[in-house]
Amino acid sequence: MDATKILLGEGDIPKAWYNVAADLPVPLPPVIHPGTKQPIGPGDLAPLFPMALILQEVSTEREVEIPEPVREVYRLWRPTPLYRARRLERVLDTPARIYYKYEGTSPPGSHKPNTAVAQAFFNKQEGVRRLTTETGAGQWGSALAFACRLFDLQCTVYMVRVSYEQKPYRKVMMQTWGADVTPSPSERTNAGRMIRGRDPNSPGSLGIAISEAVEDAATHDDTKYSLGSVLNHVLMHQTVVGLEAKKQMEMAGDPPDVIIGCVGGGSNFSGLAFPFMSEKFGGRKVRFVAVEPEACPSLTRGDYLYDFGDTAATTPLIKMYTLGHTFMPAPIHAGGLRYHGDAPLLCLLYHHKYIEAVAYQQRTVFDAALQFARAEGIIPAPESAHALRKAIDEALEAKKEGRPRTILFGLSGHGHFDLGAYEAHLAGRLEDFAYPEEAINTAMRELAAIQP
Amino acid sequence: MDATKILLGEGDIPKAWYNVAADLPVPLPPVIHPGTKQPIGPGDLAPLFPMALILQEVSTEREVEIPEPVREVYRLWRPTPLYRARRLERVLDTPARIYYKYEGTSPPGSHKPNTAVAQAFFNKQEGVRRLTTETGAGQWGSALAFACRLFDLQCTVYMVRVSYEQKPYRKVMMQTWGADVTPSPSERTNAGRMIRGRDPNSPGSLGIAISEAVEDAATHDDTKYSLGSVLNHVLMHQTVVGLEAKKQMEMAGDPPDVIIGCVGGGSNFSGLAFPFMSEKFGGRKVRFVAVEPEACPSLTRGDYLYDFGDTAATTPLIKMYTLGHTFMPAPIHAGGLRYHGDAPLLCLLYHHKYIEAVAYQQRTVFDAALQFARAEGIIPAPESAHALRKAIDEALEAKKEGRPRTILFGLSGHGHFDLGAYEAHLAGRLEDFAYPEEAINTAMRELAAIQP
Repeated sequence: MDATKILLGEGDIPKAWYNVAADLPVPLPPVIHPGTKQPIGPGDLAPLFPMALILQEVSTEREVEIPEPVREVYRLWRPTPLYRARRLERVLDTPARIYYKYEGTSPPGSHKPNTAVAQAFFNKQEGVRRLTTETGAGQWGSALAFACRLFDLQCTVYMVRVSYEQKPYRKVMMQTWGADVTPSPSERTNAGRMIRGRDPNSPGSLGIAISEAVEDAATHDDTKYSLGSVLNHVLMHQTVVGLEAKKQMEMAGDPPDVIIGCVGGGSNFSGLAFPFMSEKFGGRKVRFVAVEPEACPSLTRGDYLYDFGDTAATTPLIKMYTLGHTFMPAPIHAGGLRYHGDAPLLCLLYHHKYIEAVAYQQRTVFDAALQFARAEGIIPAPESAHALRKAIDEALEAKKEGRPRTILFGLSGHGHFDLGAYEAHLAGRLEDFAYPEEAINTAMRELAAIQP
Repeated sequence: MDATKILLGEGDIPKAWYNVAADLPVPLPPVIHPGTKQPIGPGDLAPLFPMALILQEVSTEREVEIPEPVREVYRLWRPTPLYRARRLERVLDTPARIYYKYEGTSPPGSHKPNTAVAQAFFNKQEGVRRLTTETGAGQWGSALAFACRLFDLQCTVYMVRVSYEQKPYRKVMMQTWGADVTPSPSERTNAGRMIRGRDPNSPGSLGIAISEAVEDAATHDDTKYSLGSVLNHVLMHQTVVGLEAKKQMEMAGDPPDVIIGCVGGGSNFSGLAFPFMSEKFGGRKVRFVAVEPEACPSLTRGDYLYDFGDTAATTPLIKMYTLGHTFMPAPIHAGGLRYHGDAPLLCLLYHHKYIEAVAYQQRTVFDAALQFARAEGIIPAPESAHALRKAIDEALEAKKEGRPRTILFGLSGHGHFDLGAYEAHLAGRLEDFAYPEEAINTAMRELAAIQP
């Protein structure tokens, strides 16, 4: 097959998500209560999540049916295209074949609505009237605002104050979809008032915004909380990406040798990779590469330990590769990759060497983004450009070795709201940040005390 | 057929453009030289355009083959989806069926690259090394920057200075694709230097930017000029939109009763409408509605006269509905609709009543945009929202009459770079502008002297 773009029909939108928990080579370590140091049960999560999602979180069924109302919304942009990057291949003069699965055609512009829509649906089913969440630059918040609107749920987004003030467009996008967007820290929660009491000019952080969103949900009967990555059910919802891509690579008749995705919390990478992982469990030689920023290198430099999911240490403890929940990464432009840990499912598979990892500085990532935009036309989100950087490096290696290989990477979103970063890069003003060794060591020292 | 989204395969990208000039009920009035008052010939256009495009401009062949390298680039985003707006229909509680053809999935985010890519190809074929153009808010400039990059042409964009300074993101998009973007008026041309000599702080205008781009092309051997609307060949390139939509409406088994598009220069409307127009020439009852802003109502309030295409009066004279080339429309947010005239082909068909026209104030347009974004998820460009406003009004009329009808409208682009306007509307800060009667009368009085 010789196509540039491999398209599926509406009927090819998956009818079930793939649950990798059914096929794990070793069991997933339990989630631990930080007080009792005992595994938590579904009931512990009930104040925050609807039971359908809690059951998905602990399910070991291989396939979980996608409800028809969710598929109906998916149809607004799914199936998404899979491209062969022929122009990029020509520019690189490589014998490698490069494919990418593009999630930027969703209305919010990334893969995030794949789970936002599912979460909104299951909450609505159980009579929830409002969802709360946190957002940094706004990718996740806008996906949840979009999803809530389509299922007639109210949506409250705690947006890190400095982003609220400096990056207004994602905020307007959320408001256009009817969400209530509040700069965090706010006066609405105890957590917010406490921070503002100490520092009235606090710029906020994702950790504080999580604390506010969780408190808001926990203290209102009709309200639940929604998280955009890390959790098992979130990763599962994202497998629509990989399930479609698998079918498209079969149509291309070109099974991938290496599959590459960027990792923040891990849902984008896992959504693309897990449906192909079963082939690796079955013995096929296929490599998986997770790409992260050097400024926040949880897989490549972190340790596999129990840690809190949030900066404020209010969540249960999960076992993951972490830099320590108090670690604050440098302000790189790939805001979606600035997370101290990674999804437990991804970490387990990385720990058992099913997945490789690599970290990059942001200037080389933006070099790749520019090269791609000029060859293929699409302007990548800075997060997605991390995967792209590695895909180009693999293609150049194939050239050096004189051996073809088939590369598939995830282009998880467009960069329409990141053009300020492109401008800085074009002007030579983009910074690289040294590996933050001391800050990581400090944050990691705190972890010894909380291990079960 | 019951689909939400009607998808075509890669093989369904048209192999030829449709040239409505072959089917016109009356001949198109000639383009006139302003000095001699005689019709101009192809040679007069040679300093600015490559011969292939000049021949397309005067062609009466019904089909003009799309070269394979152009189709190869189209494949990056074409065929585009056609949606049935089921959620919007439910919100409106209308018996009408509403469909929309969505062009916002192209990398520059609108229909503009359909012609930019073709123009870049034909220029490259004839050894041109650089294209110049003007842009206001940047939709057209970014489309041409994208197209030039893919055909390895240099691209110089004269961007209205006030937009260059106040709306930096489209500028960065053009630079990301390698274009040379200059605020206009500039020091690079006589036209620019003259304006700056009179007013060093001139905010610029589209008219001045055209003069600069034309002068730059005319004074450099390896350089041609590119225009994003109005001309016959530009409208023809846009017919890929309508040709695909026609096939998709056939797949839906639902022939449209009314086809709606917004009109700035007319290429978006014509691209969607013309392939369906042949059915009207053949006697089928189908309505076409062109939608324009009340602030720049060339079809609804202008006269059918000869006028210059640009504010600075440097182009040949074309017969069109015009408000006078010196008319300066109010600063509405639909920058792409602020043109004093309209494409001659569209105007001829309007004059002979094949097309209706309607004008709206911008607040009611943004009300429609919000309603659509909240129902369908996609955030429309303010230009496209004009067509949407009329589609909603048609659907409400169908409801009042209790009679179904099939509505097709063109959603020509997304509003990712227009969220500032959405913010103003959400805050109640958006202005309507009274019909500019006196300014139009003044501008129109100048036209008597230039009629042939």
